[in-house]
Amino acid sequence: MHHQFVPTQYYRALGPYEPVLRLKSGDTLTTTTVDAAGGDEHGVTVTPRGNPQTGPFHVEGAEPGDTLVVRLDQIRPNRPTGWARSVVAPNVVDPTYVKQLPETPLAEWAINHDDGTATLIAPTSTIGRLTIPLEPMLGCFGVAPFRQQAIFTATSGEHGGNMDYRGFVAGTTVYFPVFEPGALFFLGDGHAAQGDGEIAGTGIEISMSVTVTLSVLKTKTIGWPRGENQDFIFTVGNARPLDQCLQHATTEMLRWLEQDYGLDAVGANLLLSQCVRYDLGNMFDPAYTMVCKLPKSVLPARKH
Amino acid sequence: MHHQFVPTQYYRALGPYEPVLRLKSGDTLTTTTVDAAGGDEHGVTVTPRGNPQTGPFHVEGAEPGDTLVVRLDQIRPNRPTGWARSVVAPNVVDPTYVKQLPETPLAEWAINHDDGTATLIAPTSTIGRLTIPLEPMLGCFGVAPFRQQAIFTATSGEHGGNMDYRGFVAGTTVYFPVFEPGALFFLGDGHAAQGDGEIAGTGIEISMSVTVTLSVLKTKTIGWPRGENQDFIFTVGNARPLDQCLQHATTEMLRWLEQDYGLDAVGANLLLSQCVRYDLGNMFDPAYTMVCKLPKSVLPARKH
Amino acid sequence: MHHQFVPTQYYRALGPYEPVLRLKSGDTLTTTTVDAAGGDEHGVTVTPRGNPQTGPFHVEGAEPGDTLVVRLDQIRPNRPTGWARSVVAPNVVDPTYVKQLPETPLAEWAINHDDGTATLIAPTSTIGRLTIPLEPMLGCFGVAPFRQQAIFTATSGEHGGNMDYRGFVAGTTVYFPVFEPGALFFLGDGHAAQGDGEIAGTGIEISMSVTVTLSVLKTKTIGWPRGENQDFIFTVGNARPLDQCLQHATTEMLRWLEQDYGLDAVGANLLLSQCVRYDLGNMFDPAYTMVCKLPKSVLPARKH
Amino acid sequence: MHHQFVPTQYYRALGPYEPVLRLKSGDTLTTTTVDAAGGDEHGVTVTPRGNPQTGPFHVEGAEPGDTLVVRLDQIRPNRPTGWARSVVAPNVVDPTYVKQLPETPLAEWAINHDDGTATLIAPTSTIGRLTIPLEPMLGCFGVAPFRQQAIFTATSGEHGGNMDYRGFVAGTTVYFPVFEPGALFFLGDGHAAQGDGEIAGTGIEISMSVTVTLSVLKTKTIGWPRGENQDFIFTVGNARPLDQCLQHATTEMLRWLEQDYGLDAVGANLLLSQCVRYDLGNMFDPAYTMVCKLPKSVLPARKH
Repeated sequence: MHHQFVPTQYYRALGPYEPVLRLKSGDTLTTTTVDAAGGDEHGVTVTPRGNPQTGPFHVEGAEPGDTLVVRLDQIRPNRPTGWARSVVAPNVVDPTYVKQLPETPLAEWAINHDDGTATLIAPTSTIGRLTIPLEPMLGCFGVAPFRQQAIFTATSGEHGGNMDYRGFVAGTTVYFPVFEPGALFFLGDGHAAQGDGEIAGTGIEISMSVTVTLSVLKTKTIGWPRGENQDFIFTVGNARPLDQCLQHATTEMLRWLEQDYGLDAVGANLLLSQCVRYDLGNMFDPAYTMVCKLPKSVLPARKH
Repeated sequence: MHHQFVPTQYYRALGPYEPVLRLKSGDTLTTTTVDAAGGDEHGVTVTPRGNPQTGPFHVEGAEPGDTLVVRLDQIRPNRPTGWARSVVAPNVVDPTYVKQLPETPLAEWAINHDDGTATLIAPTSTIGRLTIPLEPMLGCFGVAPFRQQAIFTATSGEHGGNMDYRGFVAGTTVYFPVFEPGALFFLGDGHAAQGDGEIAGTGIEISMSVTVTLSVLKTKTIGWPRGENQDFIFTVGNARPLDQCLQHATTEMLRWLEQDYGLDAVGANLLLSQCVRYDLGNMFDPAYTMVCKLPKSVLPARKH
Repeated sequence: MHHQFVPTQYYRALGPYEPVLRLKSGDTLTTTTVDAAGGDEHGVTVTPRGNPQTGPFHVEGAEPGDTLVVRLDQIRPNRPTGWARSVVAPNVVDPTYVKQLPETPLAEWAINHDDGTATLIAPTSTIGRLTIPLEPMLGCFGVAPFRQQAIFTATSGEHGGNMDYRGFVAGTTVYFPVFEPGALFFLGDGHAAQGDGEIAGTGIEISMSVTVTLSVLKTKTIGWPRGENQDFIFTVGNARPLDQCLQHATTEMLRWLEQDYGLDAVGANLLLSQCVRYDLGNMFDPAYTMVCKLPKSVLPARKH
Repeated sequence: MHHQFVPTQYYRALGPYEPVLRLKSGDTLTTTTVDAAGGDEHGVTVTPRGNPQTGPFHVEGAEPGDTLVVRLDQIRPNRPTGWARSVVAPNVVDPTYVKQLPETPLAEWAINHDDGTATLIAPTSTIGRLTIPLEPMLGCFGVAPFRQQAIFTATSGEHGGNMDYRGFVAGTTVYFPVFEPGALFFLGDGHAAQGDGEIAGTGIEISMSVTVTLSVLKTKTIGWPRGENQDFIFTVGNARPLDQCLQHATTEMLRWLEQDYGLDAVGANLLLSQCVRYDLGNMFDPAYTMVCKLPKSVLPARKH
């Protein structure tokens, strides 16, 4: 079934809140997300800032210990401009350099849906008229956390949240551990494009029209968000510092290889050692994000 | 001029040692490197293990405060097999997972120069016969460090050293700050291929035939290694933890943009914010490595 | 007024839950806490493990932006034995050493209230009969977090939580930022004694009889928990890694000195530079804890 | 034998340099150290800044794999004023707070040898006339590093170096691993007093008259600096970030307990878990320092 859902309220934490809609496993959902500051498709601020989330969506049959499968079918900016911070965050430069970071107003970017680009239109600087490709993605999405916590949308964890990974584009499938009955899926914080690390604290923030297909893998338990696209499988570690993100993601990948690809520990280690790739997600949050990837070309057949 | 140099001794530290050869700025050098354990092209151990370095090479006219330009012209494995550790290092998995890492002998990989692949031939495991593309690179190279230090080849710093970055392949140009008269260039630790992070502590370790062209940029001072290839410019931060590597690399990139590309601070920050990419170099050393990249497609013209 | 409160339920998260009791600012409260595994004064498990909290207690007049003052009047173990993990956590030793950590059952410690000591009675080992002084303290306590989050009791933040600082003994006054009306104070996780860092993941875990006096500082806003005892004032930073804990605590101390002690920025920096002391709280949690201290002997008179 | 040595040159790296004096194991040495900026007892700059070291001193019979024992007999400031940085370093505060750190000239402190105090005499600020107790200590000392490295005096490692630990006062005995024949002992960077972490980047920097007694423990191999005073034994971890310092120090302490105190792994872990204390050394260097301590009151008798 394909649901159309128009949100009328938003949450700034992922938690065990009352679902706004109940779906069956396999259903598709089209909805909208406001931007990080609560701005909708008309540029009107409809809810307070802080990565407001659409949802939660209850997926029938999802129980703690299962896995929620989120296929990102479409992620499209639904208005003509996005905004961004203009200066990198003080935590991504040398402490001795922080005083040299400029103070600058927010940037404004024009979205061209026809040629698939974003163009910087303010503030003016020596960079002039910068045009880059659109890469629409979701910055913050996930499920209700374990032990009935409610965790705010600036950070991330085993439940997903504010991961700001450039890989979360349409065509990608994401897996989340289920901690609450119905999983309780949330989504928001769309970016028209973003640099690795979201090092200025924002991508090009914009409201989105999003279509996802949600389904449940019963009795399949994972520890951290996982995903796959045409070329790679990947695992996501959310923590601080980056070293720990990488440890979580690498450990989760070793487990995945042993559980689902029929590899023993030696085989999994041999494969990972020479073939692994890492991407940087968010490095601005309380919790950072790193992604551990393996090319499907080197993987044995999946058993499960 | 094109020098052919056959090494007869090796160093396991980068320091202010007597040069083995003196070159003019712009000269090309072809030489060989032994593998990380001191094995040469015949598989004979000719020097003790620990990333033994060929060199140092003195480049005439290089003075402290200048920049050494190293064009990596050719990096070719010069024997039929390489070796690797088989298990990822305990520092790249969750501390609670360390006890589950297997104990396994070194891996052996056969190099096929004809089709450009490496094939795992031992130990046997469920991964079977794994074949991956050759991506020959230098793991450890650089110049004599500042203040006449001698720093061992397991680690890295402003002077380069054991960075284990997959991007150091033929066709790449690398820039090092010069701290000693003549720069004193060292090279070694070739890998036939490597995963990001060198997370098992080795790539596919092999002896190499290497050709580089060395030249001096006078009165051009940089803080950290920089580089460029056909598509990207990049900066390299060597430190621990990863957060600090990224801070060094990002700061160095901001400086580069302002010094050489005619950008003011606002322009440099705007560009970096939405276009930056990060790669992971070594995450096994005492010092880790992260690389900050920008696509040349978004760069203004270089002024210097 | 002095309240006696007997808990009948416990929370494993600090959040915006319904208060169990309402107090006036200045009231004193005597209650009990179960141990980290839910064991009460009779050694009976009355609630699931995970630092179950007594509370929350609503303090009249406390509003977001105020400060809650918690005077720790009395913290007394109320049963004859406590338990502890016997082996240090894998994250506090070198990754290469983790495989050498032994596997051992929980330790049991006998509490002697007469001479104020704890004596190790199991497991048997070469350490024999180890007797150490009692230093009863609260491991996990604090208030409801900001933005209506519910954060589990294994970790810590601006709201307090599982800080496991040896300085939280009777005679200490602790200050928490107020995020919810009534502050919503929670307490639990008593330790008869503990090493710095709680490096095995537990102190000597025991149920407690606790007396605290709670009051409100109106329109006094702080960023992180603060405290004082007879000799020191201190600030508490909860985060990961330790470097960031120290940054939070040091920044909060600089703010305190400028806000309340009449110091300008130069004076605060001069004082801190040569007189600061740091203590380690928890280094086992998702979030670690470090404490920044100044001796009262070097402080100017408090203005506020 | 008691040697009097007057230095005429200084090193800014610890390395395998020609000894300035040869001692027998058990000999006592009285010498002087210049301050961190190269200033001597007359306040004259006699050598370039950067923790210049007196030495190296060769101790007869010390071979790689042995331990050098350094008894700190006397450490006395030998001039009437010391200097200090006035502002804490940007790496010890929140990145978002760095821009609020003031710019201030160096501080000057008057040393009163009669009453054992230091008094701040410049710059003027709201802190006024601050007087604190003298705690004379050595900031940077140690031995030539492993593998014939030469490592500059701003940082630290297994060989010691710039640890800036307030515990290195007269009456303390320090143990260093020996990497070079004769150990090659260096010393310098005296502080009249210092806050934990040396968070402004200096203590009260001053030239010193120092007496030490040097001896060799044959065939006693240690991994990191160790020490003891009247009340505690301790181990020193030098690395970055603090988490790793603590891991090194804790691992070294477990090894010490098992090797020299007759404890099995379970006993060592039980003891450490509830009795450990940690101190912060330098948090300004490239490498930070943390110290793991155990009270002698809880230790079994030393076997070796």
